[in-house]
Amino acid sequence: MFMFEKPLGMRDTLPSLYETKRVTRSGLTEVIRKWGYQFLETPTLEFYETVGVQSAILDQQLFKLLDQQGHTLVLRPDMTAPIARIAASRLYNGKHPLRLAYAANVFRAQQREGGRPAEFEQVGIELIGDGTANADAEAIALMITSLKEAGLQSFKVAVGHIRFANALFEEVLGNQERADTAKRFLYEKNYVGYREHVKSLPLSSIDQQRLLGLLQLRGGIETAEAAAGMTSTREGKEAVAEIHRLWEILEDYGLTDYVKLDFNLVSHMSYYTGILFEVYASDVGYPIGNGGRYDNLFQEFQTPAPATGFGLILDRVLEALGKQNSETEKCFCVIYSPERRAEAIRHAISLREEGKLTVLQDLAGVEDVDAFSKTFSDVTYFIGSRRDNQE
Amino acid sequence: MFMFEKPLGMRDTLPSLYETKRVTRSGLTEVIRKWGYQFLETPTLEFYETVGVQSAILDQQLFKLLDQQGHTLVLRPDMTAPIARIAASRLYNGKHPLRLAYAANVFRAQQREGGRPAEFEQVGIELIGDGTANADAEAIALMITSLKEAGLQSFKVAVGHIRFANALFEEVLGNQERADTAKRFLYEKNYVGYREHVKSLPLSSIDQQRLLGLLQLRGGIETAEAAAGMTSTREGKEAVAEIHRLWEILEDYGLTDYVKLDFNLVSHMSYYTGILFEVYASDVGYPIGNGGRYDNLFQEFQTPAPATGFGLILDRVLEALGKQNSETEKCFCVIYSPERRAEAIRHAISLREEGKLTVLQDLAGVEDVDAFSKTFSDVTYFIGSRRDNQE
Repeated sequence: MFMFEKPLGMRDTLPSLYETKRVTRSGLTEVIRKWGYQFLETPTLEFYETVGVQSAILDQQLFKLLDQQGHTLVLRPDMTAPIARIAASRLYNGKHPLRLAYAANVFRAQQREGGRPAEFEQVGIELIGDGTANADAEAIALMITSLKEAGLQSFKVAVGHIRFANALFEEVLGNQERADTAKRFLYEKNYVGYREHVKSLPLSSIDQQRLLGLLQLRGGIETAEAAAGMTSTREGKEAVAEIHRLWEILEDYGLTDYVKLDFNLVSHMSYYTGILFEVYASDVGYPIGNGGRYDNLFQEFQTPAPATGFGLILDRVLEALGKQNSETEKCFCVIYSPERRAEAIRHAISLREEGKLTVLQDLAGVEDVDAFSKTFSDVTYFIGSRRDNQE
Repeated sequence: MFMFEKPLGMRDTLPSLYETKRVTRSGLTEVIRKWGYQFLETPTLEFYETVGVQSAILDQQLFKLLDQQGHTLVLRPDMTAPIARIAASRLYNGKHPLRLAYAANVFRAQQREGGRPAEFEQVGIELIGDGTANADAEAIALMITSLKEAGLQSFKVAVGHIRFANALFEEVLGNQERADTAKRFLYEKNYVGYREHVKSLPLSSIDQQRLLGLLQLRGGIETAEAAAGMTSTREGKEAVAEIHRLWEILEDYGLTDYVKLDFNLVSHMSYYTGILFEVYASDVGYPIGNGGRYDNLFQEFQTPAPATGFGLILDRVLEALGKQNSETEKCFCVIYSPERRAEAIRHAISLREEGKLTVLQDLAGVEDVDAFSKTFSDVTYFIGSRRDNQE
């Protein structure tokens, strides 16, 4: 094996990208902190039997290993399940909502070279213990506000309600298996396949039109009116009513310009239980983040609680910002020969005290001084026995 | 398995500790940035055959797993080998020194409950391409300066030279195997065992005194004079001369008050090749960081280069600072009832714009308002139809 190779899907973050990431992460996390969310960190390794199986991630995407006691461990594939573990065991008291946040790497095994990253950073929140549309609105409003603060201008949050889609499928298709088959097309965003599948089903033309009409339910609040007319079940009507409440709250936040309703949104086959959303930026072909309500997870950790949250994929936010390398900070350099070392050190200290990034370098360690000097915005020389600086 | 369990040696970082860690990390990394070091990030998983075997960490401490192609992967046990991989392949040009830095978690499998953490964060640097005492001095000076900046007051850096100890052992004991046996006692800091071992050896009383005298070589620069008198080899005398040069440079930095020479320091059985050091804080029973020169690693990555660096263990620095929970930031809360939601949102936005951490909460979501209110430094109510705030 060649010494420089890395495992499939693993990437290095070199200094210029690192700085861009640092600045963007800090923009996002500062907003999240200001909204009163508390950050925490969980271990990279968790037990497969607990956090592993409760994650929203497919089993084949898990990195697994055996520990020395013979237990199967996983590299955490998301942060929601580990945070549910901590919240249920130590932080959530059941009496008022808990607001937690994270900026952490997660791991998804990849099958082929050149595909998606197998390790990537998510910045996100979990709002635990509030089952109302207030919590969904807060998650969406916070996500929008943090993206704006990080400098993103052109983006939209697609918002749907999984119980509306589920109710419609059950009403029209009659059983769960058929509903899941249809839903999978939407989950995979295979709309052509969905249309063909619906047309192939032995349904009345009215029912076919309802299922095909689901694809049209995208737009502003007027879409909710159209959706209400498409379902006759209590479940479906309640979902639409919840979308209405959500919209009203987002109006109070003044953020509906960033929101687009999308009743055929299916972000996951079974994880989400209510309002769910994905955020899209111009020029990026996949969501830069997503989230939604997951009211069933906490009971797996022996503490039933409603919960909602979002996760942004930091690399995709950077891609949307398109500003890699644009903010490289100036770096200064002080080059000296040994007899003037003490002077050079004092000068470097004073530059650093002024907040300037400053390299201190013995002349003897540099082969091509001209080339080296060009990598800095400014170089001061302390060479030979003279007292005056050569700049 | 109980749902709340974590794998052996894995820990959660709850919000108050997270904030303390964040502030301390930022204090350390800001100094490192100011000294012109460039931060980067490497993947959590590396190939065992490349980075794994080149790490300074014992094989039994590696977390290993198989990828889907059948290669053995490791969770990175340190950052030096991954950085050597990147530097050798992409960043180091061989013509002038390269300054890199990291703040990253590393992984060491543990054997028993209640022992050391199996995952912990290191903040450190690598200075590549400078084989002189300038580089060793810069690493030590930067470590001291960053610890001071993070607020640590009482600490000492023990500085030794592995080639002095090696030269003395070879001179007195004659072969590598006997030298290694003696060295291992020092590596394990088992000084009683070392004395007994030396006394049991069939040596002249003069040679026994030389080996026992090594334990006394701790203190200021006068120790270097004593060390020079104990060795007659060129290697040993060169090591002492290098310590002298290092001390002079650290005097120019004005930092010798933080330094104690320690010629019996052995931080690793074979990794370090020159000056090496460990940093100790009052009231913490183990080093909070260490470092040294490792001139042999880069040739394993097909790019021979001298290198030195240090790594601080962030949790131990926090332990030394002893200030967990002391800096919890004030958090405000705005509680509202639905009819005044828009007002409450505007008020929360304005508090956040003033830089205040502010939770916004619907009254209906809180079971015991008194208890909830007490968790904030200030609560504003927007309840009922009245226009005035109840504070």
